[in-house]
Amino acid sequence: MKSTSRLAVLLCAGALAAMAPAALAAPDKALEAKFDAMISPAEMDGWLKTMSAEPNHVGSPHNKANAELTLAQFKSWGWNAKIETFWVLYPTPRELALELVSGPGAPFKATLTEGPIPGDESSSRTKDQLPAYVAFQGDGEVTAPLVYVNYGMPGDYDALERMGVSVKGKIVIARYGAGWRGLKPKLAQDHGAVGCIIYSDPRDDGYSVGDPYPQGASRPPQGVQRGSVADMTTYPGDPTTPGYGSTKDAKRVARADAVTILKIPTLPISYGDATVLLKSLDGPVAPAAFRGGLGLTYHVGGTDAGQVRLKVVSDWSLKPAYNVIATLKGKERPNEWIVRGNHRDGWVFGATDPLSGHVSMMGEAKALGALAKAGWKPKRTIVYASWDAEEPMLLGSTEWAETHAAELKQKAVVYINSDSNGRGFLGVGGSHALQHFVNEVTADVADPQTAVSVRDRLRAALGVQAVEQPGNPRAVQLGRFAADPGRDLPIDALGSGSDYSSFLQHLGLATLNLGFGGEGSDGGVYHSAYDTYEHHTKFVDPGLAYSGALAKVTGRMVLRLTDADLPVQRYGDFADTVSGYLDEVKRLADTKRDEAAARKRLLVAGAYKLADDPLETRGDPPALAASPPLDFAPLDRAVTRLKASAAAFDHGLSARGGQLSPAQKRQLDAVLLRLEQRLTREKGLPFRPWYRHMIYAPGRFTGYGAKTLPGVREAIEERRFDDAATYIALTAEALSDYAAGLEAATAVINGG
Amino acid sequence: MKSTSRLAVLLCAGALAAMAPAALAAPDKALEAKFDAMISPAEMDGWLKTMSAEPNHVGSPHNKANAELTLAQFKSWGWNAKIETFWVLYPTPRELALELVSGPGAPFKATLTEGPIPGDESSSRTKDQLPAYVAFQGDGEVTAPLVYVNYGMPGDYDALERMGVSVKGKIVIARYGAGWRGLKPKLAQDHGAVGCIIYSDPRDDGYSVGDPYPQGASRPPQGVQRGSVADMTTYPGDPTTPGYGSTKDAKRVARADAVTILKIPTLPISYGDATVLLKSLDGPVAPAAFRGGLGLTYHVGGTDAGQVRLKVVSDWSLKPAYNVIATLKGKERPNEWIVRGNHRDGWVFGATDPLSGHVSMMGEAKALGALAKAGWKPKRTIVYASWDAEEPMLLGSTEWAETHAAELKQKAVVYINSDSNGRGFLGVGGSHALQHFVNEVTADVADPQTAVSVRDRLRAALGVQAVEQPGNPRAVQLGRFAADPGRDLPIDALGSGSDYSSFLQHLGLATLNLGFGGEGSDGGVYHSAYDTYEHHTKFVDPGLAYSGALAKVTGRMVLRLTDADLPVQRYGDFADTVSGYLDEVKRLADTKRDEAAARKRLLVAGAYKLADDPLETRGDPPALAASPPLDFAPLDRAVTRLKASAAAFDHGLSARGGQLSPAQKRQLDAVLLRLEQRLTREKGLPFRPWYRHMIYAPGRFTGYGAKTLPGVREAIEERRFDDAATYIALTAEALSDYAAGLEAATAVINGG
Repeated sequence: MKSTSRLAVLLCAGALAAMAPAALAAPDKALEAKFDAMISPAEMDGWLKTMSAEPNHVGSPHNKANAELTLAQFKSWGWNAKIETFWVLYPTPRELALELVSGPGAPFKATLTEGPIPGDESSSRTKDQLPAYVAFQGDGEVTAPLVYVNYGMPGDYDALERMGVSVKGKIVIARYGAGWRGLKPKLAQDHGAVGCIIYSDPRDDGYSVGDPYPQGASRPPQGVQRGSVADMTTYPGDPTTPGYGSTKDAKRVARADAVTILKIPTLPISYGDATVLLKSLDGPVAPAAFRGGLGLTYHVGGTDAGQVRLKVVSDWSLKPAYNVIATLKGKERPNEWIVRGNHRDGWVFGATDPLSGHVSMMGEAKALGALAKAGWKPKRTIVYASWDAEEPMLLGSTEWAETHAAELKQKAVVYINSDSNGRGFLGVGGSHALQHFVNEVTADVADPQTAVSVRDRLRAALGVQAVEQPGNPRAVQLGRFAADPGRDLPIDALGSGSDYSSFLQHLGLATLNLGFGGEGSDGGVYHSAYDTYEHHTKFVDPGLAYSGALAKVTGRMVLRLTDADLPVQRYGDFADTVSGYLDEVKRLADTKRDEAAARKRLLVAGAYKLADDPLETRGDPPALAASPPLDFAPLDRAVTRLKASAAAFDHGLSARGGQLSPAQKRQLDAVLLRLEQRLTREKGLPFRPWYRHMIYAPGRFTGYGAKTLPGVREAIEERRFDDAATYIALTAEALSDYAAGLEAATAVINGG
Repeated sequence: MKSTSRLAVLLCAGALAAMAPAALAAPDKALEAKFDAMISPAEMDGWLKTMSAEPNHVGSPHNKANAELTLAQFKSWGWNAKIETFWVLYPTPRELALELVSGPGAPFKATLTEGPIPGDESSSRTKDQLPAYVAFQGDGEVTAPLVYVNYGMPGDYDALERMGVSVKGKIVIARYGAGWRGLKPKLAQDHGAVGCIIYSDPRDDGYSVGDPYPQGASRPPQGVQRGSVADMTTYPGDPTTPGYGSTKDAKRVARADAVTILKIPTLPISYGDATVLLKSLDGPVAPAAFRGGLGLTYHVGGTDAGQVRLKVVSDWSLKPAYNVIATLKGKERPNEWIVRGNHRDGWVFGATDPLSGHVSMMGEAKALGALAKAGWKPKRTIVYASWDAEEPMLLGSTEWAETHAAELKQKAVVYINSDSNGRGFLGVGGSHALQHFVNEVTADVADPQTAVSVRDRLRAALGVQAVEQPGNPRAVQLGRFAADPGRDLPIDALGSGSDYSSFLQHLGLATLNLGFGGEGSDGGVYHSAYDTYEHHTKFVDPGLAYSGALAKVTGRMVLRLTDADLPVQRYGDFADTVSGYLDEVKRLADTKRDEAAARKRLLVAGAYKLADDPLETRGDPPALAASPPLDFAPLDRAVTRLKASAAAFDHGLSARGGQLSPAQKRQLDAVLLRLEQRLTREKGLPFRPWYRHMIYAPGRFTGYGAKTLPGVREAIEERRFDDAATYIALTAEALSDYAAGLEAATAVINGG
């Protein structure tokens, strides 16, 4: 369900350093060539057309049909497949209303409809379509004045406060972007708002960035972005079964007590509808950072000039979520699982999101099945999962992961995820011990549009970007990796936004998430009724060439991980990356200290009052909690130990890996399989114990965006300095535990 | 004629370091109090209303009436005043036409009219108004397809070239902003375009930034920015009398040979008219940096889809420019002149630009005259100038300065300029030896809206800005000065855009330019028919409080400079500033070297082709000339000598200034009066010998924006490395010459 621009794809391409690569495991290139020969973008195109032919949201007839199709296909390809059904709370709209009842432009009733688009036959199939809405908002009916809150992020409320504008008792209107959708109504209700409207500004994904669909790929005036607003920064999955599976008979938390369901009515709308509402606003002119691409002067409102009525009533019944789970059993180590997943449910037709990734996974599965039929026996067990109900908040994967948590922690070597796929450059995020493995695989797959490897194309783009954006520190940093052909390209840290979250952040399994993007665009139809087969094949990935490339990358990963004789990890990459994160949080602590001191100095000097325009209502910003000195020594020691143990392991494996006995290899696997779990702590993160990983988490105030060393980093960002000290200790403990695991693995190599 | 936003005002507030202040000359505070008491914003408001009542462009009846009014007033205040008339080439429009003759939206005839605005009585006075046009474009009639070139700056043409879009034989449409207006048609013709249209995008000064006039201060859909496009980066003033005065009988260069008159027809238009033209464009979607605030997808064109006809015919007759020159003769040192000027001509009513500054100057003159009548005798001679014909390209001041060049170089101590004035924060630019003097004066004038001094208010704003914009290196740098109350605030380097240019950059006279701004706004009516008394008093400076404050600042400067017993300069400030500039150009040279190397590496690797989207037409960017190592040693030595001689002088004056004999003081004045001239070189700058100052110049590719150490800096920027070496030597020579002057002055102090 995540959508990213080219720039974001390139700038998010990885995080930190990597040493010179060294080949550890020799992949079976002949087997991979056979695999590649069976990958057919044309076939994927056919699956995409069929599966996106009707609306396929959770509970819809076509969703069930797609589950059955997937099941039948996996079976026909030789997999042991079944449907595992969960019963999930999935609200659907029963009544939606939005109108401007007084003020300039009133009366106006928002259309709230997308409707067919000429030339896009799919979009005319309105049967079974749900109206555009956001899942897990709080039902209700309110009438109140409107306030425009820009992206609705914390800094926007700070700016409004300095303008003397409060949202208390008001309905906020926020534009999509800058942070995850669900934070907008959550922060609005935290600030006392009674309702929330979210719209897609043309500056962000409409006519400002390109011709609107159907002339171009961008969002047309009536297009609406649906989505979930369940508070996944606390926990994802069914809000009424926190931490355990939504099986048919599961005991459930009462809806009113489910903390991830929001409290205020919230509705997403188009910029066509939003224009009328924004034009009705008076109050201060919006500051520069608040201005979008509509042909009007943005005001923030905050007066009682106009009243808006907003009503949302939902059907809160349980719906079935059909996960299709397929396995190819390992011959030698059946209890070591390579798990691979992509969701199957869309908001409407779901062509790009998620089916472009799902058909890629189907292509892999067909080819793996054929290899198995032709005599290849995987050493480890392969588990392929077609998730349902990802869109409402990772329900299918989370409920499955929670249900099978104990077994997964025993057996799962790795979880590999994909979702929407596009054209251009491969973005990879995940556990950094796999960074070198990712570089090896992507060096062996050809980019469909050029003569070079997927990795080399990304390297070229990062190099050009660094030169074109000399003022962008992140671009320059990535450019340094790109400039040295002997250096691996970094992979990114994972936040949230797709089905990997439970596996990585709750269970502590090594994880990768992959997808192409950066050329063409699906942003303009993201989560709308126009994410269709027509749009995808015209504007996102014509001919599904990159669904094919994704299958080759991901299938290769599965093949190599399944059959690996020796560990593919290089732990020095993880150690270096964490060391970089530690440097960042130390700098962050300094910055926060300086900020508080500077603010205090300016407040004492009365500088804010003097700098402000007396004709505009402003007040002093609040003083900031002074930062005590933080003792990073526990983390320093842990990182030092981690680096040493990683170096010893990497060196030991490289030097003596070839001479290990089968028993030693088995012992090694046993230690390493659960190594990532040592990075989790039962206590979890502040405010959200479900998130247990001490290195990677979605940000409390970014949503999808990752926070690394999250217990420490977010505590410093939010000036919770006691928490910072607590999580310095907890994170150091996790890293030491991980280092101890590496030391045990090294002892195995050394015959200890 | 220069207009700046608040941000620009704050960010341009000065350039570099300053030591702790030390009081050198004791000003006559009682005299200044008397002066202040006579400053009346209400009176200025009355003059503004009268003088902006009718269109007052060069050659208009009201322009002449305003000259006569000014003359009469100066005389009535006791000044020796006269009108000095020049006969200047000043083209006015005879026929203007712009239409879309084919393509989407055709036929469409551009309205090219502004018309009255409800509630603004002035705007209804259309008698004598010229239609909106730009002066010194090249007459002609062309019909050709259109290309959108963003701001029309060099980087925009680079971007278009990589998109495969040429402007050869086409008409370009550029938006105002990013660089000086005249560069747009000049660069267009250099790239082979046959015509140029310039429009005001609402994102830059229209509805995007605030409510359009009359609801707010921003540009309404029909508002047009006039202006000069004479190539002032080569030389300002009458194009047909380069370097000498446009007296009645002056011998003139033929119009066709006047290099500062452009060759292609050019017309400024409103965003109302521009919308239709931009909508007609096809071709590639404009890159992000090209996108403005209109509610459409910006395309660059470049195809033959639509044809535009553009016609401009001008009346090229000579018009009279009436400079009013008034003097109060000095009693003790009549041959040392303090020169003060502000222009009087507008494009239409000219309320903000220039009359808000002109009435401030009149207020000073009245008060100075009254002081003189009451018995005060200025020690030096005061010369006040009400310039005409600034708007077409500094004609009035340039022709006067060129005519009186020899006398000015003998006698002028300083030139103090103002122009449009606004509300908020004082921006000061000029010769850095006067930086401490500026700080002393601004510490003694109260800001009209707060209880603090003009300097302290600016200090507060710079402090807040630095904290609010931690990612802006310039803001952070200025914040360091602001944070230390014992430290002077820096002043800015001067480029061009107002009447100081001849005095500073051609004659080498010490110069200051001052004006308030940053709150309220005149940007939306800048150079349009809506720059009226109504707009100014409602949105720019209600009650003319800041015209009053400007009179107090500037009048104080005149009083102190006139009567100064000892030099007010502190040369260490200049030395430190130049030293900072030298560091900048050294870093620039490194950057240029790195850029060329990085580009080469990427070209060799084929990275641009790999990074590009194969579905978009792109090509490799050109290789960059490799940078040879530059030998900065001559400049290093000169700056070292300058620092030493400045320190010796400042220290000597501070220690022994009080014991100097009248003869010594006279000797000192004689040396210092011509010191700034030592920074000029007869050879001038590359491509433009008129500009002789080796430290300050308007940028060849920025226009109004200053380039410091211009001979060196621009040569490096443009990769003219031979020129860089030549101008390292010339600039070092000028600085050594200046240092030698300081050493001579120090010898006077030491009784040598």
